[in-house]
Amino acid sequence: MNGRFTRGLETIKQYVTKEEAAQMIEADALADVAPNLRKMIIEFAYGDVYSRPGLDAKKRALIVITAVITQGAAPQTKTHIKRGLHAGLTQTEIVEALLQLVPYIGFPRVQNALTSFSRCPNTC
Amino acid sequence: MNGRFTRGLETIKQYVTKEEAAQMIEADALADVAPNLRKMIIEFAYGDVYSRPGLDAKKRALIVITAVITQGAAPQTKTHIKRGLHAGLTQTEIVEALLQLVPYIGFPRVQNALTSFSRCPNTC
Amino acid sequence: MNGRFTRGLETIKQYVTKEEAAQMIEADALADVAPNLRKMIIEFAYGDVYSRPGLDAKKRALIVITAVITQGAAPQTKTHIKRGLHAGLTQTEIVEALLQLVPYIGFPRVQNALTSFSRCPNTC
Amino acid sequence: MNGRFTRGLETIKQYVTKEEAAQMIEADALADVAPNLRKMIIEFAYGDVYSRPGLDAKKRALIVITAVITQGAAPQTKTHIKRGLHAGLTQTEIVEALLQLVPYIGFPRVQNALTSFSRCPNTC
Amino acid sequence: MNGRFTRGLETIKQYVTKEEAAQMIEADALADVAPNLRKMIIEFAYGDVYSRPGLDAKKRALIVITAVITQGAAPQTKTHIKRGLHAGLTQTEIVEALLQLVPYIGFPRVQNALTSFSRCPNTC
Amino acid sequence: MNGRFTRGLETIKQYVTKEEAAQMIEADALADVAPNLRKMIIEFAYGDVYSRPGLDAKKRALIVITAVITQGAAPQTKTHIKRGLHAGLTQTEIVEALLQLVPYIGFPRVQNALTSFSRCPNTC
Repeated sequence: MNGRFTRGLETIKQYVTKEEAAQMIEADALADVAPNLRKMIIEFAYGDVYSRPGLDAKKRALIVITAVITQGAAPQTKTHIKRGLHAGLTQTEIVEALLQLVPYIGFPRVQNALTSFSRCPNTC
Repeated sequence: MNGRFTRGLETIKQYVTKEEAAQMIEADALADVAPNLRKMIIEFAYGDVYSRPGLDAKKRALIVITAVITQGAAPQTKTHIKRGLHAGLTQTEIVEALLQLVPYIGFPRVQNALTSFSRCPNTC
Repeated sequence: MNGRFTRGLETIKQYVTKEEAAQMIEADALADVAPNLRKMIIEFAYGDVYSRPGLDAKKRALIVITAVITQGAAPQTKTHIKRGLHAGLTQTEIVEALLQLVPYIGFPRVQNALTSFSRCPNTC
Repeated sequence: MNGRFTRGLETIKQYVTKEEAAQMIEADALADVAPNLRKMIIEFAYGDVYSRPGLDAKKRALIVITAVITQGAAPQTKTHIKRGLHAGLTQTEIVEALLQLVPYIGFPRVQNALTSFSRCPNTC
Repeated sequence: MNGRFTRGLETIKQYVTKEEAAQMIEADALADVAPNLRKMIIEFAYGDVYSRPGLDAKKRALIVITAVITQGAAPQTKTHIKRGLHAGLTQTEIVEALLQLVPYIGFPRVQNALTSFSRCPNTC
Repeated sequence: MNGRFTRGLETIKQYVTKEEAAQMIEADALADVAPNLRKMIIEFAYGDVYSRPGLDAKKRALIVITAVITQGAAPQTKTHIKRGLHAGLTQTEIVEALLQLVPYIGFPRVQNALTSFSRCPNTC
């Protein structure tokens, strides 16, 4: 385990519970087919990028939620709303962020995101 | 002028200078072809959405910057980075927001946004 | 209930049955999490935009069907094909519209839309 | 010249002037690098698809305009608005079509399309 | 059956088993609603494009896999990974191709593609 | 300079001339605003990803060209076609790759890519 991986694992704890962090490594669903993907996510996304100074965890979560909704990436929308709540965003802030997107990306993707959110409002 | 238009004009002053706000109305480049578009932006985007409580102007600007970069909407990237700076985001926060997008949308759209930003870092 | 909401509800009846229009308000699936979204759709999309003069309901439905298929927005594709049929588009016109998209957006999104359409060809 | 090519050339005359149709073949800007692309567009897009029965030229033009704006394809937006005007769409219908897109794809892409349209409102 | 259709059917056998090729025609799920779509895919995609010289079947499959993943077209991702394996791409080449996309389109769409791939690694 | 950066610089030489590799570092246009972006591209894209075994440089270039065209990322299309030629792809292979995309992403993005390619067919 190199420094980037360790820093990534440390950083990810701002966004997921300890159990989820452990499970990511031990129960990686893609471990057989692409063992490098999870490692790349932890080292690059969390170790190199999320761990940078200059922006707090709540703002980083808000940016990532916005990006995956704008792309229409359904499974990631649920995952990152959950991580945003863990990082300290309130339900109100998330709903407001989604409504703020309407004039820029239109109703369909916002509605799909709110539908996915409405099924796990508190803890997912 | 109805209540939504007035509230929209009031709200937009958090994101643009007074001169720009005045110019939006008086010098609308699309006035001949689509006089309703500017009105719709002020009434709906600013009067109905940006003016909602629950999220401050800096977070709203960050969300909109993220959305237009993820869409690859070049002219709007420049406009909304400028509005974000006016709303109080620092240069560092904007650059960090852009780097935070790399693992989610890839380098090309982030690089295009940073190129456009590098040409107007302080005041555009 | 303001004028935009009333006009929106009136306009939406060109695209859905009376029962569906009533249900939209009484049984809004997102009512708990985002009570404002449905209201925004009726006031802005239907009250401000669909209700404008200059384009008939069938052409408006055709435009919206095209937009959601081009975005790859699956749940909305089904919804808006259904609304287009209610507004008076024929099955043939909808299938032709989808085939017309092939040279511009490629087969995958057209095929996904036709698959969703083939499961509810008459009345959904 | 096979039947599809001939039918494509015949069909394209509903969307462009005779001079433009002739120029497409004689002055193909991509003739050196990809001589097959123009042929493919005329044979497949115009010969196979646009020439199908069941939808008139104005509706086909409206669908294509919507698709290229939703994709954010700037050069094609201008081209296909021009072809739509040639096919008989009025300026009002095109502006209304663009405004109808706002609730589904957001302001940025509509605004870019209207900007490009405002520079060639009558004949381009 | 014209020449393009025959050539398309011949070409598609590089990407699917004989049974699948036969089934495409005999058991077209969209036959009732859009009998022309399947014909268009075989004639245009396979008869006109895939059958061109200058690029082998493995490279063509790699290009199509990349395009549908970048678009986020979920059902087509599975279909074209399977066709790529049939054309001779190895599992390793496909996983490497997907990882190569991360810096250009981000983790979400790559992760969704790998998840779909992990469920049918050998033969689907 | 760490190992990833060194490996990235080594790998990038398969895709650009020595002069361009040197210029990337010495004349980074974004050096003032976002000094980390170029470093991230060399370390992550080239040092971690392009340098992996299992796929040759020509196939990696083909994948990246496809991804940026499918996204509609204009400046990157030119850059990566040029890098593909440097890696050993022939002009014919690149034109064929672009035509192969037509049935999957439609004519507009392919036409824009070919237009940009036609302006620099040999060496850019």
